[in-house]
Amino acid sequence: MTQTRIYLDYAATVPLRVQALEAMRPFLEGPAYNASSLHREGRAARAALEEARERIARVLRSKRSEIVFTGGGSESDALAIVGLAAARSGKHVLSCATEHAAVLGAMNALAERGYEITTLSVDRHGALDVDAFAAAMRDDTALATVMYANNEIGTIAPIERLAEISHERNAAFHTDAIAAAGWLPLDVGALRVDSLALAAHKFGGPKGFGLLYVREGTPLVPLVPGGGQERGRRAGTEDVAAATGTAAALEAAYAEVERSTEHVRRLRDRLERGLLAKVPLSRVNGSEPRLPDLTNLSFSGVRADLLAARLDLEGIAVSPGSACTSGVAAPSHVIAALGTADPSAAIRISLAPWTTEIEIDRVLQVIPNAVSELRRT
Amino acid sequence: MTQTRIYLDYAATVPLRVQALEAMRPFLEGPAYNASSLHREGRAARAALEEARERIARVLRSKRSEIVFTGGGSESDALAIVGLAAARSGKHVLSCATEHAAVLGAMNALAERGYEITTLSVDRHGALDVDAFAAAMRDDTALATVMYANNEIGTIAPIERLAEISHERNAAFHTDAIAAAGWLPLDVGALRVDSLALAAHKFGGPKGFGLLYVREGTPLVPLVPGGGQERGRRAGTEDVAAATGTAAALEAAYAEVERSTEHVRRLRDRLERGLLAKVPLSRVNGSEPRLPDLTNLSFSGVRADLLAARLDLEGIAVSPGSACTSGVAAPSHVIAALGTADPSAAIRISLAPWTTEIEIDRVLQVIPNAVSELRRT
Repeated sequence: MTQTRIYLDYAATVPLRVQALEAMRPFLEGPAYNASSLHREGRAARAALEEARERIARVLRSKRSEIVFTGGGSESDALAIVGLAAARSGKHVLSCATEHAAVLGAMNALAERGYEITTLSVDRHGALDVDAFAAAMRDDTALATVMYANNEIGTIAPIERLAEISHERNAAFHTDAIAAAGWLPLDVGALRVDSLALAAHKFGGPKGFGLLYVREGTPLVPLVPGGGQERGRRAGTEDVAAATGTAAALEAAYAEVERSTEHVRRLRDRLERGLLAKVPLSRVNGSEPRLPDLTNLSFSGVRADLLAARLDLEGIAVSPGSACTSGVAAPSHVIAALGTADPSAAIRISLAPWTTEIEIDRVLQVIPNAVSELRRT
Repeated sequence: MTQTRIYLDYAATVPLRVQALEAMRPFLEGPAYNASSLHREGRAARAALEEARERIARVLRSKRSEIVFTGGGSESDALAIVGLAAARSGKHVLSCATEHAAVLGAMNALAERGYEITTLSVDRHGALDVDAFAAAMRDDTALATVMYANNEIGTIAPIERLAEISHERNAAFHTDAIAAAGWLPLDVGALRVDSLALAAHKFGGPKGFGLLYVREGTPLVPLVPGGGQERGRRAGTEDVAAATGTAAALEAAYAEVERSTEHVRRLRDRLERGLLAKVPLSRVNGSEPRLPDLTNLSFSGVRADLLAARLDLEGIAVSPGSACTSGVAAPSHVIAALGTADPSAAIRISLAPWTTEIEIDRVLQVIPNAVSELRRT
């Protein structure tokens, strides 16, 4: 007896897109190649690697040389934050309370190296106050970092404006665009950022692979020094298979982004309206503008880990908070920062372009009952 | 008209072993999973990840919890060297002139943070003087790092003894075992190391993936902080496919290591003897004990990049030095450290268990002619 699973945790990860797998196959199944070798096998691998970089650069409207391949999204964030700060003289860095653990971890690493950290709070909707951001900038601010869209509640920050303010104060501006990727425009010129981090597996590329856009001329101290790969910004034998799969996945995601956005927003809104109507004392965390693919909900008095476990038994995979704090259902620091709901009581439901109305309607049946039962016990 | 290529640059990279690809397939082709998610999909991925870790730990005779998965060999070296040093109070670190660029790069990163670096020289055979190593240890030595086997000339260092000396002086000892993997025993207890770095693609696992053994109780500052994955030692969504492929490749390499060693050593010795006999003014760089799978040769007056390019046209892929200094045929720092041969005149020929006598005999025909012609011009 197999149960059809309803997976609604796509913000945690998306399966490898078929276009990505097909692009990777020749490199997984073929003969030996090292893109840094000078012989024919090496040159062919190098050409494939640079073609992948070019295709990714086209989506970001950047130069090919501005794309650094890394071993994942967290590494991209760490490379940008530690690497940009270390290359500048100021010893102050600026961030926000609702950033991803990878960003907060990199900020802590800077604190241990003697940097002063300012962590801005957000309002009850999850929004950062732009004036407070400007006021927190100092003459010795090396770097500010604010995520493009929040991975738990989906709120979108005014990146262009924050980058502009940073530049007026001669600070570098980094954005973690990992949750935004596949949904929001990644035009780095329009966003005015100095660096932007992506994780391939969040838009249907392979796991263990990420990339960092770094604006030309921006000094960066590498996290992994050594063999000079990635123009000295990240050493190690290049993963041509992953780069090629990432390019294919990114193109596939953006080729259909308008239709996908309309589809997931319609289903997400149907889900939200249904749950708010059916479940007393329920609320949506975070407000517009926000990502179309996810919703974060609190059901007063109901622990999210228990609710998620209950839904799991009913065949529905959702997440209490984010999967990115490894295997632990700790209270969400994002919900805590809003100050409006119990941080242990928020669940995230996230959709994919292939999510169906039938799946959403099943969730609309199951959650109200599960909440009622949990509230009774 | 396709030419059958003779690839003899397996020290640069080995193709993905069929056992690795088959192990990875379910994770590449299957539905979404994030090993840090708490629902059923996440728990299944976590179980597969930990099974892979257990299988790898068995080869290293370590505990499962001592294996940290990373984004590659260079990252493993950087994590160990910067991470072990930063967790200790001493500000002196000790290394060797013939280390891989990833190690030397990490040492430079420490130098920029105020550490004092001692880089020991080697003799004309590539051997480190154990007494000189002991004499260079100081009361404030935080870390010593010496590679298990050299990636260019194959010389094997007395790791157990160096680790012992380091511990007598309360310093941590790291070894880069990337070139040794698949050939030499990786028993970390016998080696007495505190940490040991591996790159999966060097023994038939996937590219973009590595691992670091870190002895239990050894403090380590993470390079990529954040979500708490890998017990806080390396943040980022776990790459279950790569971990599973790496476990399968490592097991496959060691299941046949005795037979493989005998095979490649016999062919390597045949190649060396033949070339030394046929080519005047030729020499082998590095002496026993050394890896069985590679040879490094100098042909006096012949630039290695020109010779490698010539062989490439004849269908033979070999490397002038290492591929690990990205795409640049720079003079080898390893050969320079020996002081016996022109560092621009050394080529590395490296074999796999599936290399044939026919391939070796073809090389024995082609190289003497190529050297003669290059010497004439």
